[in-house]
Amino acid sequence: MKIVPAVSLITVIEVVAILVGAFSGFIEARRKRMDIVGVFIVAFITAFGGGTVRDILLDKRPLFWVAHQEYTILLFVVALVAAPFFKTIRHIVSERLIVWADAVGLGLFAVASVAQALAADMPIFVAVMMGVITGIFGGVLRDIICNEVPMVFRDGKPYAICAFFGCWFYIALQYTTVSDDVALWSSAGLITVMRLLAWRFDLKISRP
Amino acid sequence: MKIVPAVSLITVIEVVAILVGAFSGFIEARRKRMDIVGVFIVAFITAFGGGTVRDILLDKRPLFWVAHQEYTILLFVVALVAAPFFKTIRHIVSERLIVWADAVGLGLFAVASVAQALAADMPIFVAVMMGVITGIFGGVLRDIICNEVPMVFRDGKPYAICAFFGCWFYIALQYTTVSDDVALWSSAGLITVMRLLAWRFDLKISRP
Amino acid sequence: MKIVPAVSLITVIEVVAILVGAFSGFIEARRKRMDIVGVFIVAFITAFGGGTVRDILLDKRPLFWVAHQEYTILLFVVALVAAPFFKTIRHIVSERLIVWADAVGLGLFAVASVAQALAADMPIFVAVMMGVITGIFGGVLRDIICNEVPMVFRDGKPYAICAFFGCWFYIALQYTTVSDDVALWSSAGLITVMRLLAWRFDLKISRP
Repeated sequence: MKIVPAVSLITVIEVVAILVGAFSGFIEARRKRMDIVGVFIVAFITAFGGGTVRDILLDKRPLFWVAHQEYTILLFVVALVAAPFFKTIRHIVSERLIVWADAVGLGLFAVASVAQALAADMPIFVAVMMGVITGIFGGVLRDIICNEVPMVFRDGKPYAICAFFGCWFYIALQYTTVSDDVALWSSAGLITVMRLLAWRFDLKISRP
Repeated sequence: MKIVPAVSLITVIEVVAILVGAFSGFIEARRKRMDIVGVFIVAFITAFGGGTVRDILLDKRPLFWVAHQEYTILLFVVALVAAPFFKTIRHIVSERLIVWADAVGLGLFAVASVAQALAADMPIFVAVMMGVITGIFGGVLRDIICNEVPMVFRDGKPYAICAFFGCWFYIALQYTTVSDDVALWSSAGLITVMRLLAWRFDLKISRP
Repeated sequence: MKIVPAVSLITVIEVVAILVGAFSGFIEARRKRMDIVGVFIVAFITAFGGGTVRDILLDKRPLFWVAHQEYTILLFVVALVAAPFFKTIRHIVSERLIVWADAVGLGLFAVASVAQALAADMPIFVAVMMGVITGIFGGVLRDIICNEVPMVFRDGKPYAICAFFGCWFYIALQYTTVSDDVALWSSAGLITVMRLLAWRFDLKISRP
């Protein structure tokens, strides 16, 4: 199963998505008055935690950040270089930019996870859950370490749900004649668009 | 090693035990004002977390909820259908019923875990710990996600300890001529009875 | 790669380091008013958590505490026997002794982890991170279970950083003609010395 349709574009998206994940870990860790070690590790876990949990559940090795050591080093260098300019960066980087980049990353990583889970012969419902887990568990681990109830479980904003439906869309496309490239990109795009619409119109999901 | 002596009965017990685990996750997540996504995921982790931690420690795949996709789907459907009627259900389901079902599940899952760990050539003390972990880690993970100190570590009620002694009883029976079926059921039954007696007489264990 | 240069000495250091880890878990769990089950499990996770996380990330089995069942049993017996005399023990064991034993354990476990990670063909930056993770994640898991923001991420004291530099020193020695024994012991010693100096002079690392 071919899950890397265009290396250069996908690499750019991956790097941006990882940096966005790390940035949100950085913000949260800094709010908790962590030192530089804590900030780096929380940023790291936020960026790679979702994929790591998925790989452990699937028993897949090497882990994403082991196979791509360059991403780990990039994060380390960025953390070192960016830390002193953090306030400036936070002013430059608007919330809109973060939400957009995060939505693109959510789509891409969730769908890529489903594809991997199917390739590992997971049943389809489990594969969809792997997609959702990859999308949200970085943030969940960040909040657990920062001693908060995970935001994604309580803010009532559609996030995991967008990944959930997009992953099912990808599964559905497996039963059509649509090529794998098209299935991947359209499903990832669908998740991104749903997420951005939910954010734009401030939709809420219910509390049971 | 035969650890599934009677498929139909054991399936019923498993389903009930899983639903009870999920129900306790549901209650706790709802108390934390989580949205529907959080409630489902916490219920899911409470139901399957103990077995998942055990399987990761033993490096056993597929995970229980992957091999039994139907349980995952069942939980999802139940969560969707039951959420609106939650208050009604909570009135119908008495505390007594929950404690009984949970005690039966604790016995069964703990002993089945020890059997699995022995089958995986774990040393006996480690195998007993795997049994205890399976019995309690669903609740531990639930409490960590809900930002509480795990209840099972601080309420002073005999719970893990019942599993601990029952697992040793199972180990002891391995050195007798007792058949595997009898060993499994009597050990699981012993745990259940100890747990129910501890609950009935409100026994407490000491704080060091 | 030979990572056990002198069995008897290394065994003594291991046992002391494990007991120190367990002791810190014991103290924290007791402060949280946990019962005997919680205290033992938190002590156990503090002592073996770092190595267990590393082994799961590396997909290495059997886990350290499975291969060395005697350490698990030792911890159990110590917890049982020591619990009633806890206050006395706490008076006898000075803070200085704990810091020293912990610093020796940090050096040894971090460097041994890097060696293992290199033996498992991890890239060097990842191997260094495995060393740091082994050194700190026992305490991180302890604090997460005890519902605190991990101390090692926020107290501003050099701890992970000592492991980080010592692990790089070990990596650097791999490119020299220095024997493996010398590389191991000198790197572990360097970490221990850095840690003790940082403690002695109360050095602080910055908050970003």
